[in-house]
Amino acid sequence: MDAYKLVTRSDHPENTVVSVRGVDIGDGSFTVIAGPCAVESREQLFASAGAVRAAGATVLRGDAFKPRTSPYAFQGLKEEGLALMAEAREEFDMPFVAEVLDARDVALVASYADIIRVGTRNMANYSLLQELGRSDRVIMLKRGFTATIDEWLTAAEYVYNEGNHNIVLVERGIRTFETATRNTLDISAVPVVKRLSHLPIIVDPSHSGGHKYLVAPLAKVGLAAGADGMMVDVHPNPAEAKVDGAQALLPTDFTELMGEMNRLAAALDTELS
Amino acid sequence: MDAYKLVTRSDHPENTVVSVRGVDIGDGSFTVIAGPCAVESREQLFASAGAVRAAGATVLRGDAFKPRTSPYAFQGLKEEGLALMAEAREEFDMPFVAEVLDARDVALVASYADIIRVGTRNMANYSLLQELGRSDRVIMLKRGFTATIDEWLTAAEYVYNEGNHNIVLVERGIRTFETATRNTLDISAVPVVKRLSHLPIIVDPSHSGGHKYLVAPLAKVGLAAGADGMMVDVHPNPAEAKVDGAQALLPTDFTELMGEMNRLAAALDTELS
Amino acid sequence: MDAYKLVTRSDHPENTVVSVRGVDIGDGSFTVIAGPCAVESREQLFASAGAVRAAGATVLRGDAFKPRTSPYAFQGLKEEGLALMAEAREEFDMPFVAEVLDARDVALVASYADIIRVGTRNMANYSLLQELGRSDRVIMLKRGFTATIDEWLTAAEYVYNEGNHNIVLVERGIRTFETATRNTLDISAVPVVKRLSHLPIIVDPSHSGGHKYLVAPLAKVGLAAGADGMMVDVHPNPAEAKVDGAQALLPTDFTELMGEMNRLAAALDTELS
Amino acid sequence: MDAYKLVTRSDHPENTVVSVRGVDIGDGSFTVIAGPCAVESREQLFASAGAVRAAGATVLRGDAFKPRTSPYAFQGLKEEGLALMAEAREEFDMPFVAEVLDARDVALVASYADIIRVGTRNMANYSLLQELGRSDRVIMLKRGFTATIDEWLTAAEYVYNEGNHNIVLVERGIRTFETATRNTLDISAVPVVKRLSHLPIIVDPSHSGGHKYLVAPLAKVGLAAGADGMMVDVHPNPAEAKVDGAQALLPTDFTELMGEMNRLAAALDTELS
Repeated sequence: MDAYKLVTRSDHPENTVVSVRGVDIGDGSFTVIAGPCAVESREQLFASAGAVRAAGATVLRGDAFKPRTSPYAFQGLKEEGLALMAEAREEFDMPFVAEVLDARDVALVASYADIIRVGTRNMANYSLLQELGRSDRVIMLKRGFTATIDEWLTAAEYVYNEGNHNIVLVERGIRTFETATRNTLDISAVPVVKRLSHLPIIVDPSHSGGHKYLVAPLAKVGLAAGADGMMVDVHPNPAEAKVDGAQALLPTDFTELMGEMNRLAAALDTELS
Repeated sequence: MDAYKLVTRSDHPENTVVSVRGVDIGDGSFTVIAGPCAVESREQLFASAGAVRAAGATVLRGDAFKPRTSPYAFQGLKEEGLALMAEAREEFDMPFVAEVLDARDVALVASYADIIRVGTRNMANYSLLQELGRSDRVIMLKRGFTATIDEWLTAAEYVYNEGNHNIVLVERGIRTFETATRNTLDISAVPVVKRLSHLPIIVDPSHSGGHKYLVAPLAKVGLAAGADGMMVDVHPNPAEAKVDGAQALLPTDFTELMGEMNRLAAALDTELS
Repeated sequence: MDAYKLVTRSDHPENTVVSVRGVDIGDGSFTVIAGPCAVESREQLFASAGAVRAAGATVLRGDAFKPRTSPYAFQGLKEEGLALMAEAREEFDMPFVAEVLDARDVALVASYADIIRVGTRNMANYSLLQELGRSDRVIMLKRGFTATIDEWLTAAEYVYNEGNHNIVLVERGIRTFETATRNTLDISAVPVVKRLSHLPIIVDPSHSGGHKYLVAPLAKVGLAAGADGMMVDVHPNPAEAKVDGAQALLPTDFTELMGEMNRLAAALDTELS
Repeated sequence: MDAYKLVTRSDHPENTVVSVRGVDIGDGSFTVIAGPCAVESREQLFASAGAVRAAGATVLRGDAFKPRTSPYAFQGLKEEGLALMAEAREEFDMPFVAEVLDARDVALVASYADIIRVGTRNMANYSLLQELGRSDRVIMLKRGFTATIDEWLTAAEYVYNEGNHNIVLVERGIRTFETATRNTLDISAVPVVKRLSHLPIIVDPSHSGGHKYLVAPLAKVGLAAGADGMMVDVHPNPAEAKVDGAQALLPTDFTELMGEMNRLAAALDTELS
């Protein structure tokens, strides 16, 4: 496979550690990223951010641009949402990650966010990847829900090859014939990627399963598989969430999960960060 | 399903006919689009274009921007390729279709091409779709190789909803577990789309199967299924093609196929156009 | 691939022709097999058989053992159904095909049926395949809906290797992520199998799509792809069918389809048989 | 969903605990089943059994009938293999599990084995399931690698409905487009099945991934997901294994894994059994 070479472990045996505002991803600890799926309002964002910070999360999530299957669905608060995220960053002292959908918005998102995320639908949007490869922000690259691991690493190569080496991969489930879950979390991808590549990899237990009751078991599964972290949706009022409410944890659920995760981490000789 | 409503047949029972430089797609005839996968040189393009024109194709294909899995593969001649296509259009009197990969290139591609194609990897690139919805060119929308028919029609809705109603859908194979073919041509999608939507739908027998010997049977299959046309790769020297040579027909093969297709069309009460 | 060798075309370039009571499958013609999905009663069976015979079908289908996902669904008339099929064979002068589910029933089914079918769920039931390999009946082997073509040919090898060379393959759709159809007819499998193997292959347009409106286009698609025949569900009263009524054609629909198929066959230099 | 009702949790809220020779599966502990994939010889079997027993496994695995894709591959020692397993059971004081492939062999396998396993290819072999439903042995039902969870539970219903309620489900990976692993372990199936059914569910980290380096992470993943146990291939000399050597652990690897699993179990308030 010579479609990618820079992101492989063969010429780069040591792990890449991505550092952002004092948080190290890929250093052997398990980084917890949490927050609302989409920024809906200052109140909603701050309630979620305060709760996840208190429970031990170190990076905040919250999107301002939402890729929606239907053109008639809520598309995000756009720049207003990014500004609210930047406010929350200061308030809670957490770097934040937000998604970008369009190469023309990279500069805008980069002017606010610490970490720019490429969503599953854009994993093979090569012009967007190249634009991000020229950015100085950390890039979080979700696996396309129908991409092989080889294709995913090749997408990372597009970013890396342009000069940006601060890349975090996110396994978020693949499309299969099973319909009991939104997607099928391909947990084997964690050890496979660890073997093939030096880049850190985290899991998304919220978007893969698509149901609240699956978040806790899939979070533990990610930790047990050796992932470098996770990203979890937390909403103060999931029933009224504008996007993906069915999978969001309540702050109290998240706090409980973090307690369990701490014990599990210790048994695996790691720790949450 | 309220993710799309404008492209459904329920409120728009008659078929949409897309007209471009005297060629009507969706009028009951079977439109033949052919040419090289990628424009490589004036000589290669003209050899292919002349041959497909002589054999009865009415629309020329040939891409100047190629989305390649690897950043190290040939990426296309870009504007030079578009200019060569425009030359071929005049020489052979055929409108042409070319792919766009980036919303920032829509104006450039539109300044040359008659039909702008969205490739399978970009089917869910909503900002690109919206940009094309504001263009006055015909849009050819390939199905994402892992998109359901509902998701595909919703992508068409993104274009349609911005005001551009000249859309042609292309079934080009979906990703399955089968490895004997590059993708699995989902031929059932033709009658399913015909039932659900008023938009024309064509098939791509070259990119779905990925092997030259599959092109002729899959072309006939598309005609028999009731598609509005097909798009076929023809290369004067497939062994030296820079992209997808394994699936390109020689001009002589294409001419022979067209003869068989003409007979088949007559038995189906339609005709090639 | 050395998992199979006897069914490959490499050492056996000529096509296998399977003959059963004067019907030749694989001789270049297109054999039409039709009848009810399941035998429900003498009246239902004879109404269907008479109609398909009159319309030009040469082999009768009708199952007495039905593999049902639920243990609480109708499981077939068993030996009584086979006896009714044998009666219909005499009445309408058509050999018949029926499914077997259990190696212990092979002798029973063989004592009535001309062709014994292995259903999609049993394609990898190797002990059943071996039992059938020792039978003197024609074996019709459906592709497992999640089997690769290689696995399917290997299943055929299990039968062939025991001494029974009268095998007909049936493409009946594979499981994919698409939900608009029951399964995805993998029409490319027809030319792929023709290239790899000397065994005849037919298509099942009824069980692949799962909807009545898809039967006619998929039947034509099978003919255009070069298949050796098709198998179609026809029921005198689909609304009251005990099994798979949604996909059954009425006798009048079937007669109309046969007229269209005859024209198409002529344009493809073949004929229905 | 009324295809199954007896195996659902709705009318049977408490967990089913399956007891076999002093081992309880489903009682809240994590049952470790280990041994060779196939019984090849007395020496090979005893080396594996002694090692896994010493490391803490409580149930022995080792098959005498192997379902092989190719008719030319090693098919197992048959009754001789079962007799060796029975010897090993006495020597190491462990109940054992072995696969059955054919309804006609159920009585034979039941005369030796404590637990009879249905393999992934036979999950929808309803006549085999019904035969096992009339057996007094514990039934271990692997998920078909292309079966939905609903179809799997319906297969369990076939066994349960005949009167045998001692059923253990095994998640062993599903077929997807990913090729880096043999199959994709659908770890979400564990919490989904726990929610829907009262039957115990274990995971198979050996056959799902298909590579030795994936066994340890997938074993931990199974424990973290809340499974009731696991089944692992251990071979004294994987390089010479007749079946699936690429995924077998050496006894020393297994012992190391068990140490890690013990720590993990404690952090999850459970224990290995």
